[in-house]
Amino acid sequence: MSKDRYEIRLTGSGGQGVIMASVILAEAAIIQGKNAIQSQSYGPEARGGTSKAETIIGENELWYSKVNNPNFLLALTQASLDKYIGNIADDAIVLIDSSLTMPEGFTDGNANADKRIYSLPILKTAREDIGKPMTANIVAVGAINRLANLFSEEALQEAVKRHIPRGTEELNMRALSAGEELASAAK
Amino acid sequence: MSKDRYEIRLTGSGGQGVIMASVILAEAAIIQGKNAIQSQSYGPEARGGTSKAETIIGENELWYSKVNNPNFLLALTQASLDKYIGNIADDAIVLIDSSLTMPEGFTDGNANADKRIYSLPILKTAREDIGKPMTANIVAVGAINRLANLFSEEALQEAVKRHIPRGTEELNMRALSAGEELASAAK
Repeated sequence: MSKDRYEIRLTGSGGQGVIMASVILAEAAIIQGKNAIQSQSYGPEARGGTSKAETIIGENELWYSKVNNPNFLLALTQASLDKYIGNIADDAIVLIDSSLTMPEGFTDGNANADKRIYSLPILKTAREDIGKPMTANIVAVGAINRLANLFSEEALQEAVKRHIPRGTEELNMRALSAGEELASAAK
Repeated sequence: MSKDRYEIRLTGSGGQGVIMASVILAEAAIIQGKNAIQSQSYGPEARGGTSKAETIIGENELWYSKVNNPNFLLALTQASLDKYIGNIADDAIVLIDSSLTMPEGFTDGNANADKRIYSLPILKTAREDIGKPMTANIVAVGAINRLANLFSEEALQEAVKRHIPRGTEELNMRALSAGEELASAAK
């Protein structure tokens, strides 16, 4: 992240925890002394099973506005990918679950292209390696952080710990690390 | 709620679940066919232990902007009450936990005053009647809904169910009812 205003859009289906993931990214920003706005907007276009949450991070005071062309897009379902892939920044990073179909015109992990897309087994890692499908959002947070170079390891761990149920720290730290490793291997 | 744009600010300390409460209010709005924006903004002024979440509800498409003078303010801690009581709409409803000191110039439950304030035992009800302090945010949601006449019982119950862990439905429905009853008795 090298911009003064960095916009992250997280999308999936209801129940996949994208709101929590978005709140955690905002919290990590605060821990590192940045500013953040975290929001969910719901309108007619947002109905129909897709869930969307956005985090705006900035060095200076942020103004409120709609996120139109995010710098980072996460899509955990095909419906959310199809819906939001058309609106991203020119130099955006896109992270999709590996169960989804790669959108036309994109190449996996092509770091030389203007728009980079990464297809990583986020849901499978949460389900099989961590053993808890509900940690997929934390796996995603780890991968996002590594791909976009947003926060220090310590800040992100602290942010996660502030928003998970007590007693699940070890599980969620493993999920976070797993996400970071997936991203590191793909970069 | 009779306005086209109704702004709700929920404040407390970190860990009291005001973000979740705010998300639930937004969800209930959607279920009832309204539009909603739910957000947390963090800046230099937001550091220091208070947690703040905002829900904007509207009949028509909403524009993004800072919530400056909310129509409804919830304060669960003295620090958050002191911080935010100075910025509310002229006809705002304020709900504070009964452990807090009533702010100057306000009268408990005075429905004739322009600014109405209600002091209800939200934290105590969650702790002693429900037996789970962490349900205080759901007790608050029930009370808010009854005081501001926002949503149908069914829409709110459905919204709560979408955002709580599986297996805690009965507990949270009791918390919601308890909050509604507190508010009904105070009105």
